[in-house]
Amino acid sequence: MFKEKFKEGIISAKQFNREDIEYLLKKGKEMIKTANPNLLKGKILATLFFEPSTRTRLSFESAMYRLGGSVIGFQSGEVSSIKKGESLADTIRTVENYSDCIVIRHNMEGAAKMASRFAKIPIINAGSGSKEHPTQALLDLLTIKEECGTLDGLSIGIMGDLKYGRTVHSLSILLSNFEVNLYFISPKVLALTNREREFLVQQQVKFKEIQGYRDILNVLDVLYMTRIQKERFVDLEEYEKVKSFYIFKKEDLDDTKGNFVLMHPLPRITEISPEVDNSQKAIYFKQTLYGLYLREAILAELLAD
Amino acid sequence: MFKEKFKEGIISAKQFNREDIEYLLKKGKEMIKTANPNLLKGKILATLFFEPSTRTRLSFESAMYRLGGSVIGFQSGEVSSIKKGESLADTIRTVENYSDCIVIRHNMEGAAKMASRFAKIPIINAGSGSKEHPTQALLDLLTIKEECGTLDGLSIGIMGDLKYGRTVHSLSILLSNFEVNLYFISPKVLALTNREREFLVQQQVKFKEIQGYRDILNVLDVLYMTRIQKERFVDLEEYEKVKSFYIFKKEDLDDTKGNFVLMHPLPRITEISPEVDNSQKAIYFKQTLYGLYLREAILAELLAD
Amino acid sequence: MFKEKFKEGIISAKQFNREDIEYLLKKGKEMIKTANPNLLKGKILATLFFEPSTRTRLSFESAMYRLGGSVIGFQSGEVSSIKKGESLADTIRTVENYSDCIVIRHNMEGAAKMASRFAKIPIINAGSGSKEHPTQALLDLLTIKEECGTLDGLSIGIMGDLKYGRTVHSLSILLSNFEVNLYFISPKVLALTNREREFLVQQQVKFKEIQGYRDILNVLDVLYMTRIQKERFVDLEEYEKVKSFYIFKKEDLDDTKGNFVLMHPLPRITEISPEVDNSQKAIYFKQTLYGLYLREAILAELLAD
Repeated sequence: MFKEKFKEGIISAKQFNREDIEYLLKKGKEMIKTANPNLLKGKILATLFFEPSTRTRLSFESAMYRLGGSVIGFQSGEVSSIKKGESLADTIRTVENYSDCIVIRHNMEGAAKMASRFAKIPIINAGSGSKEHPTQALLDLLTIKEECGTLDGLSIGIMGDLKYGRTVHSLSILLSNFEVNLYFISPKVLALTNREREFLVQQQVKFKEIQGYRDILNVLDVLYMTRIQKERFVDLEEYEKVKSFYIFKKEDLDDTKGNFVLMHPLPRITEISPEVDNSQKAIYFKQTLYGLYLREAILAELLAD
Repeated sequence: MFKEKFKEGIISAKQFNREDIEYLLKKGKEMIKTANPNLLKGKILATLFFEPSTRTRLSFESAMYRLGGSVIGFQSGEVSSIKKGESLADTIRTVENYSDCIVIRHNMEGAAKMASRFAKIPIINAGSGSKEHPTQALLDLLTIKEECGTLDGLSIGIMGDLKYGRTVHSLSILLSNFEVNLYFISPKVLALTNREREFLVQQQVKFKEIQGYRDILNVLDVLYMTRIQKERFVDLEEYEKVKSFYIFKKEDLDDTKGNFVLMHPLPRITEISPEVDNSQKAIYFKQTLYGLYLREAILAELLAD
Repeated sequence: MFKEKFKEGIISAKQFNREDIEYLLKKGKEMIKTANPNLLKGKILATLFFEPSTRTRLSFESAMYRLGGSVIGFQSGEVSSIKKGESLADTIRTVENYSDCIVIRHNMEGAAKMASRFAKIPIINAGSGSKEHPTQALLDLLTIKEECGTLDGLSIGIMGDLKYGRTVHSLSILLSNFEVNLYFISPKVLALTNREREFLVQQQVKFKEIQGYRDILNVLDVLYMTRIQKERFVDLEEYEKVKSFYIFKKEDLDDTKGNFVLMHPLPRITEISPEVDNSQKAIYFKQTLYGLYLREAILAELLAD
């Protein structure tokens, strides 16, 4: 049972096997048609965001409301007692008394995992440090499944910040459960870490690491782009060097297959030219909608009686 | 049909003709008596405020709740992905997937208009730059209508910051649909812009521009005061010169007609002396209550099935 | 009747006599078993927090949702019109039009009292300056009552910042209605003010003021610790001198009675060592849960038709 297995929450993409993913994607798909507006009546979701967010927080909150629940929380650590020096552990042990589930985003590595050690209610990791963002990766898979019809047999390029990108890490882990060919495309300084590389080898995932994307555009079913995240760089000079390494332009679409799709977790800065937005192949805004459905499914699974 | 005409939302006072205004004011008045607490059940309003707000945001949110709906959003751009460099267009194309209507306040001229070009759901302009704040002007008209019994035949003074005041601009536009005598009262440096002046001439509105208000106090039915907005001045020295140009005092009331009313969109700083607050003629707090009703009417009209 | 007596709200612990406290504690206890999820349907609570908060704001909001109501408000004065120079009085006279009750936290002494003078709806003081935080003190009493079985006959130590601690002030006032032995433990520089001392003398409360806690640990039924609040110090050097004056360690528990309980309004910084958390005697997180029930009781009493 999903609820039983994930009773401590969703902390890492590594908790999911193929069966779990397929089950959740099926539930997410059902939410496209209809959601029960009374399912979570009386339940309260706490959204604790210590880093800025648009999509993740608002889609969780919208999902909760669509299922009849309520939301408390904060949009910045500045307005909480963390500002007075309170530890995250104490905050969690307090907020769990006011809610039925906590969604947390924090810049600290392992923040969500730590939270789940202290809480008796489920914790959902909405991004912790540069390591994990599992619900983003789950919605990415729902998007691919619905738009490409399958998850097996696809050639998927993952491009941009492969070093600090927490979305990339969670996505790679989830995709390792399927028969995919992965192309990791990045400037050398933002390449996969050894930890990620070893994980992929160990999982026997077929993957290549390259620096340019144009040569392989015509073999890709999916190109998943990511933002170079200024806030993860200690050295801003290093950021300046790589920030505009890739800019996907309209002409690039000419080299892609008919059923090719371009994805991005957003926000995007300059890495996808706005002229690409109107193409049927650009599905990054649609992706945000799949995010709503997937998060409705997660909340329904974890919280419904 | 109101809903059909305004399906892209409420961006500018210029969208409204006399019939639209009268229809909405009638609907706003009905909300005074009773509001259907289940009308917008299951609907979600997004309130995206990139500038501070008390009245506009809270009254929209209260209105939504009173009609049974829910609210998501942010109270400052600092907590959103705008902080990471995301464009407003991308934010809108995301949030529209999580909500049924977006209320937006932004310091950029034309922000709401731009948002409505990108969104498939209605956008409500809650203040964009120094040009427009149409729902404030609509609630001002509801206040005048209910308190004075009519909109035609009135002498209305509009005083303060006529250059940067977005409320003033929207109000003038709406009033141009009625038979009114307008007095625009301001220091020279904050006078109407040519754009506004030409619009009024073209609409054949009867208006005068003057610098002092005492000489005309006894002819006015309404005096609409506004704050000198520090945040719109590039040159703070210029602000210091004009910030206390007008201070409405209790004695001023002696010169006014029996049915005279003093209005203000609020916040007020020093331009109305607190001793005036207790007068029956001071209706600026009542005005905030009309704001709730008017916004209930707007949400009901735009969002009810 | 509670509702009638407190129709202007809960501003000070001094409003409560023994009967009021016992009534509210009984109502708070009832909320532990069950809360009517439709009791406050259609009601709106405004939470205006001008200072950071985790427990107070979130527990009030959770309480409101659990009783079927809705919540509007702001988490920081920065996002409100206060930022533009609006007075608190004007903010209150606006927000009361959008809500049925206002919970306010402000760094200014007497802010809540002032708010209640201007508002026609009940105001709840969620902490104003360094003087009062009555609902915290009420939840503290509910905690003591439920955990110790009684409020009379107890020996209670109150330790830490007795000068600036608003929780301490409200708690002392409430406890003065019961037969208790109070020990006020603090460094000299943070001792009770004359005002507090005189109040206790006048109420004929049995109390002692001491600087060390170890000698009396074995006589205490309750030790209520508080944080040394950095934000209340004008002179940060003075803060540095006293910030680590007390650190309650695991060994300290050895000297306590079997039914001893350690309380803290939270947040705690270093004054209770984390190793204490797992003791049955450490009830500060449980205390936050009693806070939810007590605030449910308050909202139910003040707002139910």
